[in-house]
Amino acid sequence: MKAMQNFEDMTADLSESGVRKRVAMVCATDEHTRWAVERAREAGFAEPIYIDNVDKNAAAQEAVRLVREGEADLLMKGLINSDTLLHAVLDREKGMLPKGNVLTHIGVAEIPAYHKLIAYSDAAVIPYPTQEQRVAQVRYMVDLCHRLGIAEPKISLIHCSEKTNEKYFPFTMGYQDIIRMGREGAFGPCVIDGPLDLKTSCDKESMDLKGIVSSIAGDADGLIFPDIEAGNIFHKVITLFCGAEVGCMLQGTTAPIVMTSRGDSKESKFVSLALGVRNCLSRPL
Amino acid sequence: MKAMQNFEDMTADLSESGVRKRVAMVCATDEHTRWAVERAREAGFAEPIYIDNVDKNAAAQEAVRLVREGEADLLMKGLINSDTLLHAVLDREKGMLPKGNVLTHIGVAEIPAYHKLIAYSDAAVIPYPTQEQRVAQVRYMVDLCHRLGIAEPKISLIHCSEKTNEKYFPFTMGYQDIIRMGREGAFGPCVIDGPLDLKTSCDKESMDLKGIVSSIAGDADGLIFPDIEAGNIFHKVITLFCGAEVGCMLQGTTAPIVMTSRGDSKESKFVSLALGVRNCLSRPL
Repeated sequence: MKAMQNFEDMTADLSESGVRKRVAMVCATDEHTRWAVERAREAGFAEPIYIDNVDKNAAAQEAVRLVREGEADLLMKGLINSDTLLHAVLDREKGMLPKGNVLTHIGVAEIPAYHKLIAYSDAAVIPYPTQEQRVAQVRYMVDLCHRLGIAEPKISLIHCSEKTNEKYFPFTMGYQDIIRMGREGAFGPCVIDGPLDLKTSCDKESMDLKGIVSSIAGDADGLIFPDIEAGNIFHKVITLFCGAEVGCMLQGTTAPIVMTSRGDSKESKFVSLALGVRNCLSRPL
Repeated sequence: MKAMQNFEDMTADLSESGVRKRVAMVCATDEHTRWAVERAREAGFAEPIYIDNVDKNAAAQEAVRLVREGEADLLMKGLINSDTLLHAVLDREKGMLPKGNVLTHIGVAEIPAYHKLIAYSDAAVIPYPTQEQRVAQVRYMVDLCHRLGIAEPKISLIHCSEKTNEKYFPFTMGYQDIIRMGREGAFGPCVIDGPLDLKTSCDKESMDLKGIVSSIAGDADGLIFPDIEAGNIFHKVITLFCGAEVGCMLQGTTAPIVMTSRGDSKESKFVSLALGVRNCLSRPL
C-alpha cells in the first residue's frame, strides 16, 4: 500500500491494478466527458455503459436502476443538470441513498503549490452541516483517504481562527466532539484536529509563527469546511487561480457518483472518474 | 485619475503625488514592519510616529489618542495582538469608532492569475454580517475603489451559486436590496450584481459556460463574501497557494487602521501601509 502523491500516480496505479469497474455514464454527450470516459476505458479501469436518452429524467433513472440492480458499479454525471440527476438519486423507492445516510460532496485536489493530494468537503451539497452531517463528512473523508493509500490521514476541521467560540461559532464546539471520537477510534486510523485555519493546516511555517502546536502540522490530507460558502470558495479559488486539478464525487450513496461541471477540463473529468473507481474499492490496492 | 492595475503602480503613483501622511505606528518592533515603514518614509508618502511602549495596552491607547487629537492621519498595527489593539480602538469614550459605524475588514489583493487588483471583505472581523453591516461593507468597498482610481467599480455579491434562496441562504434576498440601492445611486458610481459565484465574478469564460449574463462579466473589482469563513478561506488560499500579495485594513473607524499579520512578508506590510495612506484621501489622486 502506498499513499498517492498526485493524480498521475493514482491513475497509473489503477491501470496496473487490473481493477475494472462498470460505469453508468449519464449523458456523455459532450466532447470532454466522452474523451475522459474513453481514456479511462483504454487505461483499463472503466467499462462505460453509455446512457444518452434525450429525456434526461429517463436517462438519470435508468443509470440509477443499473446501479441498484448490480449491473453498474458506479455512476458518472455528464451533460445533465445536477438537480435532474439528484432527483433520480434521491427517489425514496428507486433511488441510491439509503435511509439515514448523509449525502455530501467531496473533492480531491492536486494543487501545484501543495506537496500532496488534499481532500475537501463540502463545496456543493450541504449548506450548513449539522453535527450529524459533519460526523458523516469526516467518516467518508477518512474512508476515501484510506482507499487512496493514506494509512493515517490527517483531517483538519477548518475555521477562520484556532479558537473555539461557542457564541459566534457553535460548530467549533462540535469539532471537539469529533476530535474525541477520532481519538476513541470511531473513524479508524486517522489524526483529527481543529479548529485550525487553512494556513495552519497546510503550512508548518505559518503554524510555528502562530506559536501553535497541532498534530496536523501543516501536512493536512483532508479539510472539513464549516459551511458550503467556505468550501465553494476553496474549490473555485484553487481551480481558477492556482492551476489545481480536482476530482469530485458524491458520497453517502450506495455507489459513488462522479460529479463534474460543464467547465471542467477533460483531464479533470478523467481524474474524477479514476477517483470514483478507487472509491468503489473496499480497501486500498 | 487612472485605475491602479497592480501594487507597483499604486505605490509609485503615491510616491509621485506628494501626499505624505502621519502614521501612528504601534509596536513596529519586528524587522519586517520596521523595514516596510522606513521604505514608505523613503518613498515619501508616510511619516512614521513610532510608539514602542513595552506595555502594549498603553501603546495602543497612545496611538488612538494621536489619531483622535489630529496628530496622526492613520494607524498601523505592528507586533501587537489584534485584540489588544481593537480594545483601544473600540473604547466608547477614547476610541476611534463613531457610534453607529460598522467596523469591518477589507483586503486588496494582487493575484498573479487575475488581470487587476481585487478588493474583498470580510476575511477577519464580522462573523455573519447582518444586512446593515453588509450595506456598510459595500459602501466602504466602493469608496476604497474610487480612491484607487476605479471610476465605476464592479462589486460582486458572492454566493456558491447564482440563485437566490430564501430558505437556506436568506442573505441572497438581502443582496437584491443592495443591488437596488446601487442602481438608485446609494453608493455613487458603481455596478453591483449577485448572487454570483467566484468564477462567474472573475472569469468571463466560466460565466458564458453557465449561460449567465451579468454586468460583472468576469471583471470584478471587489468581492463581498457571505460570511467570515468564506472570506478567510479566500484570503488564505490566495496568499498560501496563488502567490498573491495583499494589503489589509479596517474600515469604519475615523481613520484607516492598517492591519498586518505576523506571517506577512515585508512587501505585504509596505503595500498595506500604502493602501492605508490612499484610503486617507478623500478622493483619487
